Amino acid sequence: MAPLLDSFFKQVDSSVNHFTMRLRKAVAIPSISADDARRPDVVRMADFLYQELKSLGASVKLRPLGKQPGKEYLELPPVVLARYGNDNSKRTILLYGHYDVQPAEKSDGWTTEPFDLTIDEKGQMFGRGATDDKGPILGWLNVIEAHQKAGINFPVNLLMCFEGMEEYGSLGLEELVKEEAKKFFADADAVCISDNYWLGTEKPCLTYGLRGCNYYSVEVSGPSADLHSGMFGGATQEPMTDLVRVLSSLVDTNGKIQIPGIMEQVVAVTQDEEDLYAGISFTMEAFHESLGSKTAIFDDEKKTLMGRWRYPSLSLHGVEGAFSGPGAKTVIPSKVIGKFSIRTVPDMDIDETNKCVFKHVEEKFAKLKSKSTLRVYAQHTGKWWVASPKHWNFNAAAKAIVRVYGVDPDFTREGGSIPVAVTFEEATGKNVLLLPMGTSTDGAHSINEKLDTRNYIEGTKLLGAYLHYVAAEPQR
Amino acid sequence: MAPLLDSFFKQVDSSVNHFTMRLRKAVAIPSISADDARRPDVVRMADFLYQELKSLGASVKLRPLGKQPGKEYLELPPVVLARYGNDNSKRTILLYGHYDVQPAEKSDGWTTEPFDLTIDEKGQMFGRGATDDKGPILGWLNVIEAHQKAGINFPVNLLMCFEGMEEYGSLGLEELVKEEAKKFFADADAVCISDNYWLGTEKPCLTYGLRGCNYYSVEVSGPSADLHSGMFGGATQEPMTDLVRVLSSLVDTNGKIQIPGIMEQVVAVTQDEEDLYAGISFTMEAFHESLGSKTAIFDDEKKTLMGRWRYPSLSLHGVEGAFSGPGAKTVIPSKVIGKFSIRTVPDMDIDETNKCVFKHVEEKFAKLKSKSTLRVYAQHTGKWWVASPKHWNFNAAAKAIVRVYGVDPDFTREGGSIPVAVTFEEATGKNVLLLPMGTSTDGAHSINEKLDTRNYIEGTKLLGAYLHYVAAEPQR
Repeated sequence: MAPLLDSFFKQVDSSVNHFTMRLRKAVAIPSISADDARRPDVVRMADFLYQELKSLGASVKLRPLGKQPGKEYLELPPVVLARYGNDNSKRTILLYGHYDVQPAEKSDGWTTEPFDLTIDEKGQMFGRGATDDKGPILGWLNVIEAHQKAGINFPVNLLMCFEGMEEYGSLGLEELVKEEAKKFFADADAVCISDNYWLGTEKPCLTYGLRGCNYYSVEVSGPSADLHSGMFGGATQEPMTDLVRVLSSLVDTNGKIQIPGIMEQVVAVTQDEEDLYAGISFTMEAFHESLGSKTAIFDDEKKTLMGRWRYPSLSLHGVEGAFSGPGAKTVIPSKVIGKFSIRTVPDMDIDETNKCVFKHVEEKFAKLKSKSTLRVYAQHTGKWWVASPKHWNFNAAAKAIVRVYGVDPDFTREGGSIPVAVTFEEATGKNVLLLPMGTSTDGAHSINEKLDTRNYIEGTKLLGAYLHYVAAEPQR
Repeated sequence: MAPLLDSFFKQVDSSVNHFTMRLRKAVAIPSISADDARRPDVVRMADFLYQELKSLGASVKLRPLGKQPGKEYLELPPVVLARYGNDNSKRTILLYGHYDVQPAEKSDGWTTEPFDLTIDEKGQMFGRGATDDKGPILGWLNVIEAHQKAGINFPVNLLMCFEGMEEYGSLGLEELVKEEAKKFFADADAVCISDNYWLGTEKPCLTYGLRGCNYYSVEVSGPSADLHSGMFGGATQEPMTDLVRVLSSLVDTNGKIQIPGIMEQVVAVTQDEEDLYAGISFTMEAFHESLGSKTAIFDDEKKTLMGRWRYPSLSLHGVEGAFSGPGAKTVIPSKVIGKFSIRTVPDMDIDETNKCVFKHVEEKFAKLKSKSTLRVYAQHTGKWWVASPKHWNFNAAAKAIVRVYGVDPDFTREGGSIPVAVTFEEATGKNVLLLPMGTSTDGAHSINEKLDTRNYIEGTKLLGAYLHYVAAEPQR
């Protein structure tokens, strides 16, 4: 039986001004985690959430994380840990969000004051953090409040984990999540993260996968210092010559990875998975527009999406140590470091992938019979994440989307990584759902970041409805 | 019959303090052509030469060159044009030198004040411009003065052309030389330039060749802006992938140029040429030391020198538009520009070389069947220069070296370019000789530039002796 949601929805609709004021207050706090000088504002934002949650009847604590590594004069902002409801007969959903924001200055090109929420005639609410990630966090608070005001029984228990360092590498979070997995988070039956975006602007989606990323450096060194090509060209071997030969062996024009042992690790596409791509709202026209060119590898939508989401890719990012300015410089660089990364997917193993990369690079270099010195290493690695979109957590969210938006959601992955998804899955062992509130055009890390009023209000309904459908899903 | 030079030499030896004072005065004028604020000092240096030459009885004019292109508020420093002697029965030698210097600040790491000539216990005279090129210019003035004081008949007529913009691209010089070739320079029988260095520190050399340089850009562009590799990797073709494939096709680890039509233009080594390499003072140990590594292409001296001097080379300098900083950045660069240059030698033709490069790059790119856009072009080109080392101009200088230093000179080329050598040869049609005064360790463009007193004083004798041997050489 479908949950009774009408009075909740009505309460949300009648609270638009109040919810907007809540977002305005939050946006007004410039909680920029990357800016040391703004650290008191980040802490102020934690206090704001503490007070809001307290007044809604949640039990809240501000969990200190200690000093910022490498900047021992700076205290990390606390993680807001909260619990709402403690009924053993209900499911418990663990929510993650972040209350810090990207930097923003009017002079960067904003048309409005970035920390003064400004609503245009289309209902677009401009302000730093509106969509990333204050709107979604406050969505959860709105859900609690609307239930209270409408006098509706809350369908689940909530655990909340709101951090203040997401835009600066989530310093300290992984340790906390691991530590609390069997303590504060022990009751969680599933995890819900609202910190990503629809694929387009009109159709909601549920995100069940992210690629991982292994980032590599290939260093070739010879002479002890840069040389002049007039003086030395033709008499010394040149590291740059070897480097481009190695880099040219990694991937071809159509993105096909040439390193043996990589594609072999990729799981085959199942019919179930293939079906998920059928109705996705995505066109090659829109993709060409986002590229600003017609240099897509594939001509059709499904292959393009699979290329971004479920197959690995290898990108050459650049070269450190060589001439990189405009104009002409006749230098023989003595040490050059090529940078490339592989976006990883199931069932690629980080260590196995590293091994294949190192072996390939070393073999290609050995074939050159160069007198220069090679060094290849991973700068950082991060695991891919894929959840089961058939889990009750996803079923509940999909039904909520049908209820609120009247359409079946797109089931999407993303090509980039959101490390926290992996962190929560590995620490809790529970299904993780990415349930976005905003759209692809919200400009999360750009100037003129915004959240549409529709997405904020219908999004609040969606988050609430999701919790009711979670309660209604059969045990499996 | 060998010229009688003893009284000239004696006069030079007794003038060490006086000649050193002359160099001290010149070094004290910070005639930095690259620094707009120092332009009055550059002009002051021209005035200094004007006065010195006047007082030696030369006819001198300061030839204005007009405004500096692109900096119309700045007047170019004048070229000092001078004539000493006007005897139709004597040969006339055209001298070139430059009176401007590289920038220098004590704070760059100089151990002495750069514009205060400082002599250490080994006779090393430290100061900006000491060896490049004030010492050699003043050497010619010293020669004139020593002849006057010793009462010796001057053996030749001199034409002098001393410019003040050499360290900043010799702005305006080429036009002046072409213009005066059949006027002020009309009488010249040969040209002598003292503005380079011995191959090592102990053995004088005569330089008869320089390589040219064609500098190329290969631009590959696709998307309209840089992309995130998480979002787009695997779905778009990437310009950097194509660029490294093109760059990897140009040259191999051992410096062998892979572009068809380049090596085909190179003249074969003759026995005469080969003989010139026989006694050259150069060791692989010294070469490895200058590299700071054992990454030389060849194991023997002759091949190494020929690789630097008489064969073309291709160096990959770097990539513009890609990530070039330290650390990791997951960018897909939208437009990347590879930079490389070819050092050219006889009988390579600039246009033919360009044609071969463009054809090769375009063919390699076409084979990739990429949707990205290629553009390949020459940023600048410059011709190689080779003079006949059997010309009387060289014979005279070689005999002067035997007379002053007691050894046969090395006959050298240089791998880099000195455009003025080509300019004078092409404009006058006369043999050009590079007759260096300083050594390879003088640090012309570095901190702590110096000229050894030995090289200044014996160098002055050498310049004078050269003029006497010029007079004694038979007509051919």
